[in-house]
Amino acid sequence: MRKVYRYLEQINSPEDLKKLKENEVRLLAHDIRKFLVQSVSKTGGHLASNLGVVELTLALHTIYDTLKDKIIWDVGHQAYVHKILTGRREQFKTLRQYKGLSGFPKRHESSHDHFDTGHSSTSISAALGLASARDLKKEKHEVVAVIGDGALTGGMAFEALNHGGQSKKNITVVLNDNEMSISQNVGGLSNYLSKIRTAPIYAKVKDDLELLLGNIPAIGKSVKKTAEKAKDSIKYFFVPGILFEELGFTYIGPIDGHDYNALCTAIKNSKNIKGPKLIHVITKKGKGYKLAEKSPAEFHGVSPFKIETGKPISLTKNLSFSEVAGNTLIEAAKTNPRIVTITAAMPSGTGLADFAEQFPERFFDVGIAEQHAVTFAAGMAAEGYKPFFAVYSTFLQRAFDQVIHDVCIQNLPVTFLIDRAGLVGNDGETHHGVFDISFLSCIPNLTILAAKDGNELQAMIQFAEKHEGPVAIRYPRGTTALDKEKSILPIQLGKGEVICDWGKDALILTVGNMNEIGVALCQQLNNKGIGATVINPRFIKPIDQHLILQHAKSHKRIYVLEDNAKIGGFGEQIRSFLNEYEVYKPVKLFALPDAFIEQGNVALLYKDCKLNQEEIFTEIYQDFTKGIIGKLAITR
Amino acid sequence: MRKVYRYLEQINSPEDLKKLKENEVRLLAHDIRKFLVQSVSKTGGHLASNLGVVELTLALHTIYDTLKDKIIWDVGHQAYVHKILTGRREQFKTLRQYKGLSGFPKRHESSHDHFDTGHSSTSISAALGLASARDLKKEKHEVVAVIGDGALTGGMAFEALNHGGQSKKNITVVLNDNEMSISQNVGGLSNYLSKIRTAPIYAKVKDDLELLLGNIPAIGKSVKKTAEKAKDSIKYFFVPGILFEELGFTYIGPIDGHDYNALCTAIKNSKNIKGPKLIHVITKKGKGYKLAEKSPAEFHGVSPFKIETGKPISLTKNLSFSEVAGNTLIEAAKTNPRIVTITAAMPSGTGLADFAEQFPERFFDVGIAEQHAVTFAAGMAAEGYKPFFAVYSTFLQRAFDQVIHDVCIQNLPVTFLIDRAGLVGNDGETHHGVFDISFLSCIPNLTILAAKDGNELQAMIQFAEKHEGPVAIRYPRGTTALDKEKSILPIQLGKGEVICDWGKDALILTVGNMNEIGVALCQQLNNKGIGATVINPRFIKPIDQHLILQHAKSHKRIYVLEDNAKIGGFGEQIRSFLNEYEVYKPVKLFALPDAFIEQGNVALLYKDCKLNQEEIFTEIYQDFTKGIIGKLAITR
Repeated sequence: MRKVYRYLEQINSPEDLKKLKENEVRLLAHDIRKFLVQSVSKTGGHLASNLGVVELTLALHTIYDTLKDKIIWDVGHQAYVHKILTGRREQFKTLRQYKGLSGFPKRHESSHDHFDTGHSSTSISAALGLASARDLKKEKHEVVAVIGDGALTGGMAFEALNHGGQSKKNITVVLNDNEMSISQNVGGLSNYLSKIRTAPIYAKVKDDLELLLGNIPAIGKSVKKTAEKAKDSIKYFFVPGILFEELGFTYIGPIDGHDYNALCTAIKNSKNIKGPKLIHVITKKGKGYKLAEKSPAEFHGVSPFKIETGKPISLTKNLSFSEVAGNTLIEAAKTNPRIVTITAAMPSGTGLADFAEQFPERFFDVGIAEQHAVTFAAGMAAEGYKPFFAVYSTFLQRAFDQVIHDVCIQNLPVTFLIDRAGLVGNDGETHHGVFDISFLSCIPNLTILAAKDGNELQAMIQFAEKHEGPVAIRYPRGTTALDKEKSILPIQLGKGEVICDWGKDALILTVGNMNEIGVALCQQLNNKGIGATVINPRFIKPIDQHLILQHAKSHKRIYVLEDNAKIGGFGEQIRSFLNEYEVYKPVKLFALPDAFIEQGNVALLYKDCKLNQEEIFTEIYQDFTKGIIGKLAITR
Repeated sequence: MRKVYRYLEQINSPEDLKKLKENEVRLLAHDIRKFLVQSVSKTGGHLASNLGVVELTLALHTIYDTLKDKIIWDVGHQAYVHKILTGRREQFKTLRQYKGLSGFPKRHESSHDHFDTGHSSTSISAALGLASARDLKKEKHEVVAVIGDGALTGGMAFEALNHGGQSKKNITVVLNDNEMSISQNVGGLSNYLSKIRTAPIYAKVKDDLELLLGNIPAIGKSVKKTAEKAKDSIKYFFVPGILFEELGFTYIGPIDGHDYNALCTAIKNSKNIKGPKLIHVITKKGKGYKLAEKSPAEFHGVSPFKIETGKPISLTKNLSFSEVAGNTLIEAAKTNPRIVTITAAMPSGTGLADFAEQFPERFFDVGIAEQHAVTFAAGMAAEGYKPFFAVYSTFLQRAFDQVIHDVCIQNLPVTFLIDRAGLVGNDGETHHGVFDISFLSCIPNLTILAAKDGNELQAMIQFAEKHEGPVAIRYPRGTTALDKEKSILPIQLGKGEVICDWGKDALILTVGNMNEIGVALCQQLNNKGIGATVINPRFIKPIDQHLILQHAKSHKRIYVLEDNAKIGGFGEQIRSFLNEYEVYKPVKLFALPDAFIEQGNVALLYKDCKLNQEEIFTEIYQDFTKGIIGKLAITR
């Protein structure tokens, strides 16, 4: 049988790579790209960034021994090639699936993975930690952080450069510069890197000028003295990368990231340089797959697609929650000049791309910089604007302090559009948005809502537009019904809604999109003769005390459904609230357990967490058929 | 009557300053310093940083009109002179006192304050927000961020520089470079700034070399061509501040920060430069008060002191919780080579200064960089070390994501020593450590403890040393009893302790240092014939289910005392836990309200929050004497 991947199939560990001849490595690179496109077209995943780092990864594995030397992949979206080369090719078809291979480096998955990643800009910090440990243990291996130019705009990367530059630790930062984060990069750093890329003359200039200063006797005495004093500094000037040099890193580059030989040479040479060093590698996101080269942002993260056309295999007609948010803001902005929107490097993901096009002056992409985004929003709000910062729940964790310190203490009307709240699926534990209710609820002045569908999200954004203070609106990943015919009454501060009121047995409180299950349960319970009421509280904070208290008193048992961690979630707050008001009744919580939830299809994960309709129904049904109700429910 | 401050007393607003002649301003500066030392010696407060910015603040107020132009003071510790000049001199004797003048800029305090600060590194982000709003409104005023070189190491400042550099917004960053954060600064950036400071020749070199390249015909053709191509770049090289220039800022400086005229000229000139610019000002922390010049770190934040000696007026002999932590780590480190400690620029404040001296190789000051600190710790833990990151509760908010993402997902044995948990007093709402239980409890794998006194803190650190996973130990600001004679049994995972067991009426659960009140209450209640049991749960997470359940069942009413926000705090978790286990009883929570707590003496603040012994006693006593117990307490 003909081998599909003649060279790739020979590689079962990095050792096999080291046996190849140079031209074979080129053919291997071709195999890897073909394999990546084929495989990711079936599983979905992160494509463009991996196509860009094929030669870089090959070079790293040629020079380093990753069982000993430790490479940390920032974010980790670009670690697929590394996985393929380190014995995980066969498992690749399970990529990002339930119980399958992770889309990120994982220590538990391979002894070639030395630090888990997922969120941006952590790699240099982790590398410094590993290197400091190595030095204390008097070990000798190399520690390498591979970080994109996008991730480098995250503040903690700079904190690490600052520490690393002084520490003199032997670490290598490989700057994978593809001019992109997910979308086009922004910021002064990006401009700076682009200047380096377009100025190949630098190195030569340096040599020439040193010659000039050293050899020409015709210069005046003061100039000569000056020149001598400056000589030590000269080396910085004409070398690109002075920004890194000034922070204490030795800069090497720029290197063509698709020239395997050049990469090997640079990496090999860098091993002889003591202290912190930065290798600047220029890569092309999507390299080798025409469609991805042309639209790297589109091929950053993809669902299964047709290779020939690049189009997703399953097309959904429904809008995503993100699109509903974006469209609602566009409509609002047409009549309200105070509305501005902010993203931290995710204009498309958060649904703001169209807004950006229609209101370029009122849209701000601040780079991968959630902390700055929040305080920047606070600044605009202090001047009378209504900033909407659209951000994934998991990334808002990065700006927790700024939400408290810069927005809420000053009670400024910034709205946080918390996208991807709840389980997100294939990105797994690093990306689920399951803590936001817990970490936001304690913040004074903040109003928190959860949207059950597109129409409600729309109405909540309209509420936030008018509300005089900070607001957070959470909504899940995925599509939603948006019924344009349906008009929804304006949302009122602290007011929930009764969705169905079919009896006084079970009171079911549903957070956001859990409402759908709640309604189905109500029907299902009704069929069994159990009368239930479903309330959509809308507000996590302030709690609709009147509505909930009234129903809690009249119902036998209370259930809370939420896609947030149980600890600190809405359900715990309801239990506490009812105790405060002396309603002593069983309140059962269906929420996420106190554990990091793995990757996979969201429906499977919900089932694992007993957050699916079937499991919940069984539990409630049992509560009402075990005959223990009378004993427990003490209504006051 | 002779005026004590002849020049200062003429200044009731910045307008008055503008009427002074140059030599009068010098005398005014002298007055201000005298006033600062006198006043802060009585109230306590931040002295050294303010002594350092007298001329800078005078120059800023000379050139700008702060009713229109907006100055944002990063951190805000250095805004005293600004306050004195903007009509708050008379209130200065109430500085940082209950209901008095804040130690930070506050929008509600003066129309000269345009954005509240407190935590480090927010000013450039806020300034960009204000400037973006200004431009959308087509207004014309200046926006200025005054930031220290310490604060500049915080990642979000870099995020803002990156955004600002590209935005081309007209903003001015004044870099107040005193080579310190609270203590000596660290990091590559600090080295870089120091290079600028010690190289005054730069400006001249630039002129000379431009002459050289322009006029000497004796250089070869290729060199000449090279030189021409490089000419545009030359301007960067010989100008210090290239790091900022590369990010898109126009660099001006370095300027002697105690030369009022030079400062005025630089600031005035900067107004003619379009786009983002950075004025680098060299100041001396503590300037003008010899003792503070000599020991600026000691005079960063002070309690009332004698001016002649610099010594605090009230000397306490007790150890602080921070010192107990530091000393315990020193002892542990002697026998356990895996122990390393980390601070984010606060070696003294967190009690690690002695550790740093005894184990310099195992101590890491990473600069004002909490995010990096946590992930750096995770890196060391991944290699088998036991890092202890000592950090104030309020600053740990900065690293929330890293605690989840880099430490807890990987279940790495990093210990967070959460100092200044609870109300901190005079620093007010930005600095109270009242959210940590709420934001940490939801994180899987994390064990959370609260120490009631020095002995317990010691034992908890010893517990953490042996525990295989992430641990957080919270303890308050201030001194504590540490009884060296007393030996405490090793802390066991998830086990609390019964402190006194005097009856079955009230069960009192006390978090950390609230235990002292709990014990006093127990005595007081006993005197009134109400039998109480006090439990120190020790563990916020995992809850000692057995101990608490057993006592909750046997007691009539339950009380929880904690110096954390009520929402998401230990009390809410206890209510939830008891509901889960079908114990339906009144649980009353004495915790902090859902509001930002102002500044002032901690005892006064506790009283305001009804968290003092008297108020709590009254409430409990009423519960047991109103005859409603029988109705409510349903024991199962």
